[in-house]
Amino acid sequence: MRLLGGIIRTVENITSPFLVRCKQREVHTSHSSAVLIDGLKRAQVIQKQLKREVFSMQEQGYQCPQLVTVLVGNNEASLTYVKKKMIAATELGISANLIHLKSSVHESELIDLIKSLNEDQNVHAILVQLPLPKHMCKQTICNIIEPLKDVDGFSFSNLGKFFLGSSTFWPCTALAVCDLIRSTGIESKGKNAVVCGRSKNVGLPIALALQAPGMDATTTICHRFTPHQQLCSLTRNADILVSATGVPKLITSDMVKPGACVIDVGITRIPGKKSMIVGDIDFDGVSRIAGYITPVPGGVGPMTVAMLMKNTVKAARRHQVGLGT
Amino acid sequence: MRLLGGIIRTVENITSPFLVRCKQREVHTSHSSAVLIDGLKRAQVIQKQLKREVFSMQEQGYQCPQLVTVLVGNNEASLTYVKKKMIAATELGISANLIHLKSSVHESELIDLIKSLNEDQNVHAILVQLPLPKHMCKQTICNIIEPLKDVDGFSFSNLGKFFLGSSTFWPCTALAVCDLIRSTGIESKGKNAVVCGRSKNVGLPIALALQAPGMDATTTICHRFTPHQQLCSLTRNADILVSATGVPKLITSDMVKPGACVIDVGITRIPGKKSMIVGDIDFDGVSRIAGYITPVPGGVGPMTVAMLMKNTVKAARRHQVGLGT
Repeated sequence: MRLLGGIIRTVENITSPFLVRCKQREVHTSHSSAVLIDGLKRAQVIQKQLKREVFSMQEQGYQCPQLVTVLVGNNEASLTYVKKKMIAATELGISANLIHLKSSVHESELIDLIKSLNEDQNVHAILVQLPLPKHMCKQTICNIIEPLKDVDGFSFSNLGKFFLGSSTFWPCTALAVCDLIRSTGIESKGKNAVVCGRSKNVGLPIALALQAPGMDATTTICHRFTPHQQLCSLTRNADILVSATGVPKLITSDMVKPGACVIDVGITRIPGKKSMIVGDIDFDGVSRIAGYITPVPGGVGPMTVAMLMKNTVKAARRHQVGLGT
Repeated sequence: MRLLGGIIRTVENITSPFLVRCKQREVHTSHSSAVLIDGLKRAQVIQKQLKREVFSMQEQGYQCPQLVTVLVGNNEASLTYVKKKMIAATELGISANLIHLKSSVHESELIDLIKSLNEDQNVHAILVQLPLPKHMCKQTICNIIEPLKDVDGFSFSNLGKFFLGSSTFWPCTALAVCDLIRSTGIESKGKNAVVCGRSKNVGLPIALALQAPGMDATTTICHRFTPHQQLCSLTRNADILVSATGVPKLITSDMVKPGACVIDVGITRIPGKKSMIVGDIDFDGVSRIAGYITPVPGGVGPMTVAMLMKNTVKAARRHQVGLGT
């Protein structure tokens, strides 16, 4: 795990198994320091459970879960994500197939492909990697996926169920964020949560999940039109602060409430010889103020992949027992 | 319009046609006073436009919009609402039919009825009046309504589209609240909006609509688990305050930012010889502090009916021109 110089407290008395019990690495000041929420470790725990479940399915004579990923074009980030998902799936015993289409493919061909995957009884889960080329309508494509196989949870029907709090395939990033917060052992009920970013696939689902029964946080959605002063005032009162904007170092230490749980969902690629990704949080400064913090990379990213695997196993299980979403 | 003793400022210089230009009625103190947002008048303006549209449809040789309302049981409030909706529809030239079922009706009979209405090409809009008897699943019933006819916007598919900000049938209360705020002429973009209440049909859709492009407010969702002190602190910073809890006098004057726009969505029936309804806002006190305020009754209620009519006319128009949602 790469640390950006933040002071990471030795955690001795915390019972949650998902926290990194790391040694104090470097002391810059005498301030207190955040506990690192290690998404990679938490993802490994979940994937271990899923592996047992997949093994148990096969022992019961069921087919292993079948995930088909559709990738259109050669977006560099997408290629990386898809690779990670394929590796994760294979390690769990999930059969993972990739259909890689040229970026010039006609939208109708993609639609026909999805329809045939919808009908294929051997396919339990379909994932269309986003973003799609500009000549395609993301919403149209996501909505064609059969809701029972829509493990990203972006079809109209699954988003509507998510809105209503029904059990279905919740968007993976929202699941990941909630799980990481729970893993710290802190109580979210009645706490102030602030989400920066209102994208339909990430920020908004996270906000909706945080206010919903189970998490029960008082939840504020900030976005591009939130004046900076207002944003600072809100984030300084946030017990839980989630940033999902893609603006590097948007959240600095002066914007964070001491002891807060800070979750970084931002991913920005910094071009250079060795491609590097950074989050929205100024990790170095904020880790001196926050109570808990996720790193980038190694925080929400691997957990989102684990949640996709969880949804895939759920889809296969529901197919086997003949349940709807 | 019933006023609970609030001081209503004379409005002279406001250009919006939707504000009541009422005379100062009663002066209790020397404090400034709120402008009354008259939902009844605004609803009349919208209904006048809709009436012209329905007339124009018929002039073009199209059938007038057909709304079918299904009422199960004899819930007193539901009977009142349904009656209001039927009267409003008839006044606009919408053909409104009521199917009134006994509360003991089996869920499967209701489902069969909705399916037959879905298939009936002469029916453009279907409304199932909520609440339903306890032996029925509200979500199952709402989701059976054909999305193209679902003018309440509660089917999974329509809620999912609403979440994504797609053009479809947004829940009527959310439409009503946004319209009333816009009618004041105040700018919501980048302002602090606080919504009290997270019900799936009212509070949550309102919050989602307020943060969405077009309204663009920084939006906070408070609910039963929000500690009172935290609630007060949030509401005191709200430029737009919407309450939809059904807790009478939850919002008192000390909880309101001077000059704020306060929208009361709460409806509580006070039993007595003459049944009376009250909202969530202590109107008498809050109207001395707020800049704009809706009354109960005569605020959000009639506007919600107007928005249902708007959705009904939209459904008929889309049917005529062969559009999907």
